[in-house]
Amino acid sequence: MSAVETGVVAFATPPFAALADWGTSNLRIWLVDEKGTVLDEAQSGDGMAVCSRDNRFATVLESHLDSLAAPKSLPVIVAGMAGARGGWREAPYAETPSAVDRLYEQAVSPDHARPVHILPGLCQKTTGPFDVMRGEETQIAGVVAGGLATGIICMPGTHCKWVDLEDGKVQRFRTAMTGELFDLIAKQSILRLSIPADEKAETHIAAFEAAVTEAFLPGFSLATGLFSIRAATLLSSPAPHEAASRLSGLLIGAELAGMRNFFEGGKTVHIVASPALAGLYLRALTQVGAKAEPLDGSALVRTGLFAAAKALI
Amino acid sequence: MSAVETGVVAFATPPFAALADWGTSNLRIWLVDEKGTVLDEAQSGDGMAVCSRDNRFATVLESHLDSLAAPKSLPVIVAGMAGARGGWREAPYAETPSAVDRLYEQAVSPDHARPVHILPGLCQKTTGPFDVMRGEETQIAGVVAGGLATGIICMPGTHCKWVDLEDGKVQRFRTAMTGELFDLIAKQSILRLSIPADEKAETHIAAFEAAVTEAFLPGFSLATGLFSIRAATLLSSPAPHEAASRLSGLLIGAELAGMRNFFEGGKTVHIVASPALAGLYLRALTQVGAKAEPLDGSALVRTGLFAAAKALI
Repeated sequence: MSAVETGVVAFATPPFAALADWGTSNLRIWLVDEKGTVLDEAQSGDGMAVCSRDNRFATVLESHLDSLAAPKSLPVIVAGMAGARGGWREAPYAETPSAVDRLYEQAVSPDHARPVHILPGLCQKTTGPFDVMRGEETQIAGVVAGGLATGIICMPGTHCKWVDLEDGKVQRFRTAMTGELFDLIAKQSILRLSIPADEKAETHIAAFEAAVTEAFLPGFSLATGLFSIRAATLLSSPAPHEAASRLSGLLIGAELAGMRNFFEGGKTVHIVASPALAGLYLRALTQVGAKAEPLDGSALVRTGLFAAAKALI
Repeated sequence: MSAVETGVVAFATPPFAALADWGTSNLRIWLVDEKGTVLDEAQSGDGMAVCSRDNRFATVLESHLDSLAAPKSLPVIVAGMAGARGGWREAPYAETPSAVDRLYEQAVSPDHARPVHILPGLCQKTTGPFDVMRGEETQIAGVVAGGLATGIICMPGTHCKWVDLEDGKVQRFRTAMTGELFDLIAKQSILRLSIPADEKAETHIAAFEAAVTEAFLPGFSLATGLFSIRAATLLSSPAPHEAASRLSGLLIGAELAGMRNFFEGGKTVHIVASPALAGLYLRALTQVGAKAEPLDGSALVRTGLFAAAKALI
């Protein structure tokens, strides 16, 4: 196959689309050919938080595409917070139950010279408690495109998403603020005095597991369990990493207790996370008697974006 | 009774002691006569956090006593964080079960020209989960001195204390980080986008009550309930104060659920808090079927300090 020139860069095959994962803090862009093969990529800290200040979305996008020598007419598919209220252009939430491989039908386009399609987020409004996601629905589209159409998906992180997927449709989902609470509590609450900043890297397995068990018990109280971490530092001599691991175990255990209706009855939980975080959730889920397995999440959002690109372009 | 002169100030009766409530953020000092009548008082933001930097406890105390024209030999009784590790001088915790009217026996004195007695805090170590208090035990001594020797005491605040008091002894206690979590979450989590800074003053009663009920249900998950507050802002049009009141209701409801073993079986909960906070707890406790009544907490710590002064001087 001969090289294709666009500007100064030679691509092995012609670029078919640019795929953008545009979150609150980061922007990641892939140039792909029509088979979805990555030709080049770029990433930066120009997330929605930075870009929404002076509505710099168009400028930032073009600057990144220039650096990748993308053709001026190349279409761009965007997922994430760039489509939130206050983002580039609001892509209103699709509502559960929702087929994730049809979300592209509700994409919106900002006023821009180049064709740009911003995918909607997903909300739960009338079929369950209020909940929202923006970005994860495109990862789930990647899961479905990868062949898993029915199952329970757990996506740990700042705001952990638990998803009940059936025949390619998100039937219901819930969010737990586990990651955000961990950061706030470890760094800014009284527990910061018990958790040195460098103590998060390693896990004290015994402390983590004991905390998961404690948090999964009926009658457990998170606000009380948390303070006991501080008291333990004052009254005993915890090993290094013990306080941080106990905090992590209490928060994850409490999350699992709250989400147990997703995995009761022997359903397998498919975990989408970085290896370290997936390892913790796998351990905790196994501990409370659930079946769990990690899912390779590295390319899911790109796969979901590419599936939308094939439908839209 | 003739006026007594000390320095330039005339007291109606001679000062018997200075009583100091020395917390993390504030210092409050009362000059009392031998009947406990307040002759004069002072307060400032010179709490333990400020004073421990250069060990300024002695200087700060003398400066306040000078401003009150206290005699140079007047004894001082101190309760609170000034007796913590890293405070003026550590007063090691007394351990549950513990008679609060005998805590003065474990008071310690820093190396200082004037007689100063720092009362110990209270810990739970072998008879229940690790827990600590420092300052509240002296309020409880005030409760006992006021005539209530047996009962359940709930002390809402940054770190809410629940206490099982029996014949003047603290049998067991637990701490919930409710107030600290409210502040962190309202001001620094994603919920800050749903809770304007001025929205905490008023309570949206219906939202508060619905949240208490929700949080008291079995299977409730705090981390998930919290995110639903953010989702509700995005998907509906909450009334002013609704998000903050819902946050307050979820946190207090979850606290009550975790503490229900204190008030099960029809025991009355005696609430020690500012009128606004006591009102919220009273409402929430009544709602979940508990008996509750506010206790006048304004002079409790002073009463407890004075009881110790009578024993020590």
